Amino acid sequence: MKTILVKDIYRDTEKYAEQIVQVAGWIRTLRASKAFGFIEVNDGSFFKNIQIVFEENLENFKEISKLPISSSIVVEGKLVLTPEAKQPFEIKASKIIIEGYSSSDYPLQKKRHTFEFLRSIAHLRPRSNTFSAVFRVRSLAAYAIHKFFQERGFVYVHTPIITGSDCEGAGEMFRVSTLDMKNIPIDEDGNVDFSKDFFGKETNLTVSGQLEGEAYALAFRNIYTFGPTFRAENSNTARHASEFWMIEPEIAFADLNDYMDLAEDMMKYIISFVLENAPEEMEFFNKFIDKELLSRLNNVVNSEFGRITYTEAIEILKKSGKKFEYPVEWGCDLQTEHERYLTDEVYKKPVFVTDYPKDIKAFYMRLNDDNRTVAAADLLVPGVGEIIGGSQREERLDILEKRMEEIKLNKEDYWWYLELRKYGGTKHAGYGLGFERAIMYLTGMSNIRDVIPFPRTPRNAEF
Amino acid sequence: MKTILVKDIYRDTEKYAEQIVQVAGWIRTLRASKAFGFIEVNDGSFFKNIQIVFEENLENFKEISKLPISSSIVVEGKLVLTPEAKQPFEIKASKIIIEGYSSSDYPLQKKRHTFEFLRSIAHLRPRSNTFSAVFRVRSLAAYAIHKFFQERGFVYVHTPIITGSDCEGAGEMFRVSTLDMKNIPIDEDGNVDFSKDFFGKETNLTVSGQLEGEAYALAFRNIYTFGPTFRAENSNTARHASEFWMIEPEIAFADLNDYMDLAEDMMKYIISFVLENAPEEMEFFNKFIDKELLSRLNNVVNSEFGRITYTEAIEILKKSGKKFEYPVEWGCDLQTEHERYLTDEVYKKPVFVTDYPKDIKAFYMRLNDDNRTVAAADLLVPGVGEIIGGSQREERLDILEKRMEEIKLNKEDYWWYLELRKYGGTKHAGYGLGFERAIMYLTGMSNIRDVIPFPRTPRNAEF
Repeated sequence: MKTILVKDIYRDTEKYAEQIVQVAGWIRTLRASKAFGFIEVNDGSFFKNIQIVFEENLENFKEISKLPISSSIVVEGKLVLTPEAKQPFEIKASKIIIEGYSSSDYPLQKKRHTFEFLRSIAHLRPRSNTFSAVFRVRSLAAYAIHKFFQERGFVYVHTPIITGSDCEGAGEMFRVSTLDMKNIPIDEDGNVDFSKDFFGKETNLTVSGQLEGEAYALAFRNIYTFGPTFRAENSNTARHASEFWMIEPEIAFADLNDYMDLAEDMMKYIISFVLENAPEEMEFFNKFIDKELLSRLNNVVNSEFGRITYTEAIEILKKSGKKFEYPVEWGCDLQTEHERYLTDEVYKKPVFVTDYPKDIKAFYMRLNDDNRTVAAADLLVPGVGEIIGGSQREERLDILEKRMEEIKLNKEDYWWYLELRKYGGTKHAGYGLGFERAIMYLTGMSNIRDVIPFPRTPRNAEF
Repeated sequence: MKTILVKDIYRDTEKYAEQIVQVAGWIRTLRASKAFGFIEVNDGSFFKNIQIVFEENLENFKEISKLPISSSIVVEGKLVLTPEAKQPFEIKASKIIIEGYSSSDYPLQKKRHTFEFLRSIAHLRPRSNTFSAVFRVRSLAAYAIHKFFQERGFVYVHTPIITGSDCEGAGEMFRVSTLDMKNIPIDEDGNVDFSKDFFGKETNLTVSGQLEGEAYALAFRNIYTFGPTFRAENSNTARHASEFWMIEPEIAFADLNDYMDLAEDMMKYIISFVLENAPEEMEFFNKFIDKELLSRLNNVVNSEFGRITYTEAIEILKKSGKKFEYPVEWGCDLQTEHERYLTDEVYKKPVFVTDYPKDIKAFYMRLNDDNRTVAAADLLVPGVGEIIGGSQREERLDILEKRMEEIKLNKEDYWWYLELRKYGGTKHAGYGLGFERAIMYLTGMSNIRDVIPFPRTPRNAEF
């Protein structure tokens, strides 16, 4: 007899009612008297458990009664509807096979654990309610992203992880090397001789696939990336990890407004998809993690995102009468406190801030006609702050080159990026969505370490 | 007026026939006389071009006539059906806006180029027919994989890229470090002091997410990974890259047969999805890259995969009367020539070879009752050889530990992997599909460098 998934029983109860079914999973709770017992089994396919009733007629009744939490079992029995009880149905076991014993020192006992403790058992924490929900939502959100872009004909591109170039100097990088560290080759100028390294040059882990993404957008028109990116920054905050996943769409024949339209559609799509496909998980987060979660997400789905210029934002902040830790002046970068004021107190919905001063943005962003701002836009969301950053890209070769000279980038390192402007460049735009930030936003979880299966942070690469 | 995708015109021609439409794309060919001209435009959304007819009534007629290949344009005009012509329709341009000029030194001129040359312009090669087809198929195949697993309730897991452990010693690894290479810290024993490195220990790029995947399968029952993996091997073959993507499903309450059933379903699903969603591309490959491609793929979709044991395979090879370069003896690893004989000459369809000698397989594979073979299975396909490798995993803690001792693995490094067997382990199995191998198989392309956007191989990390 084939086992079926608990999810299928919940989603299509009628089909299985009063039938003999077989399920397999791990014991979440077990209580037994001398004559009968109850087991809550979770099989990982669904957030909720299924209740098993077993009685002394089972030949291994005594053994079953003493099984420790997290033992794995295979259960055969009749699915009985229980409309009068808390759970909608239960299985009256005719047979229970013990698949694998757990042990009384199983670290995930029923009592509440801190998230911090659970990080130290990252191999077991997905068996807890919270992390079972987080990582199921993470999987669904990833699928929603692929579905959204594929249904619109976007081409998914795997941009390189190991890179010989330093995109935009977006952050500190990890070096990738096979050189013998006890015997580093030095060239005649006294520098490390990377020509002896695996790739014949210095290589690092990518901080962004954007530049390569642009090359593909100028062939396929609409593309997206979805892959890991890295920052070797020694920052131990709840919002930073050394390894995280990023989605970077890039669209040709498109300007800043097209990017904002796309990003707004995408955010709404992801949220709607998760709300629809993981209602039990979202209910749980709303109850135990963040009581505002569902109202906030529903608000996002149903509102038109705001759009204001950076210059307008500065005016609003100055007139707010608020005392900010970081003073507000045209030219300054917006801090989280400023972003939160705009989203949480002024707009109460997501808002794009556009047209930032060029000096606080990357070289590839398209210069506006005022010569002092660029066609950039960041999406700020209530409760979190910045979640998406993007821009129209500078497609005019002469202006791009001038900008690179200004900030002393070596143009030869970017020969192919510049060629994209030489051989049929087009208006184009793109953005980056930090996947973990999006998951934090979707679940209400407040530490990035709790939305990545095995987080990497300074001094931590366990598992 | 909004531009529409060329794909939409091909797929829903009726909707746009005799309508004014706007398209945007890059010029593939252009020929013009004094009074009129033809342009083949490709917008990247579709394999085929769309023909534009323009006449001297356009105010910029002369300028248009001289545009170099790959210039980008926006075209407005009426979509006219041309049932008597080679192409099914064309656009009679009422307006052509030049979006971006190309140049006469554009490297991708109409003549045939070698794949080797095209690798040197990896930023432009997706604009060629072959690579446009390859990377659209790659994108569709990736989506098919997500769709296949998500529709079956599998949880997508992002296993770590930077790792402190060396899974199965599957291959040479790249070191990830932020230590100053000109000033490497040495500890009192004369070794590199990795405690001073970013993660406080030695870290490398992952060769497989399997071990972490197992942890998640023992929580969610059915999971899959899809992410980049790395090998620092100095092998310059057409089938090896230093950076490649891998899919690693892992299923609990499942044995070797369940893995083979799943892998067979998956392969058929991916092939069918690509045949259905990229018929033009597949037709192209069949015509220009590999004349056997479509018949081979259709054969795979419609045949039941063979299943033989390694021991049977050795018998067949010995009795073949063939002279192999590598002699065949029980205990030897199967070479490509052996695999190809089995698939191409004996079975003429995909075949799983199961139950390999334990000494040529990894420590985590489940020991069979004969004590000398393990419950492993590799999928061999005609024309390629091995495309999938997998096994049932050793779930019995004592046997696993004994095996690790035999091959002198440090058990403490695997503490959490061993705990999975201690706290409710189950029968489970999994496999790895090299994504690039699958794309080579789907397209007939014979060099792995031509199915990855920006390949990384020894001494090559350009772009």
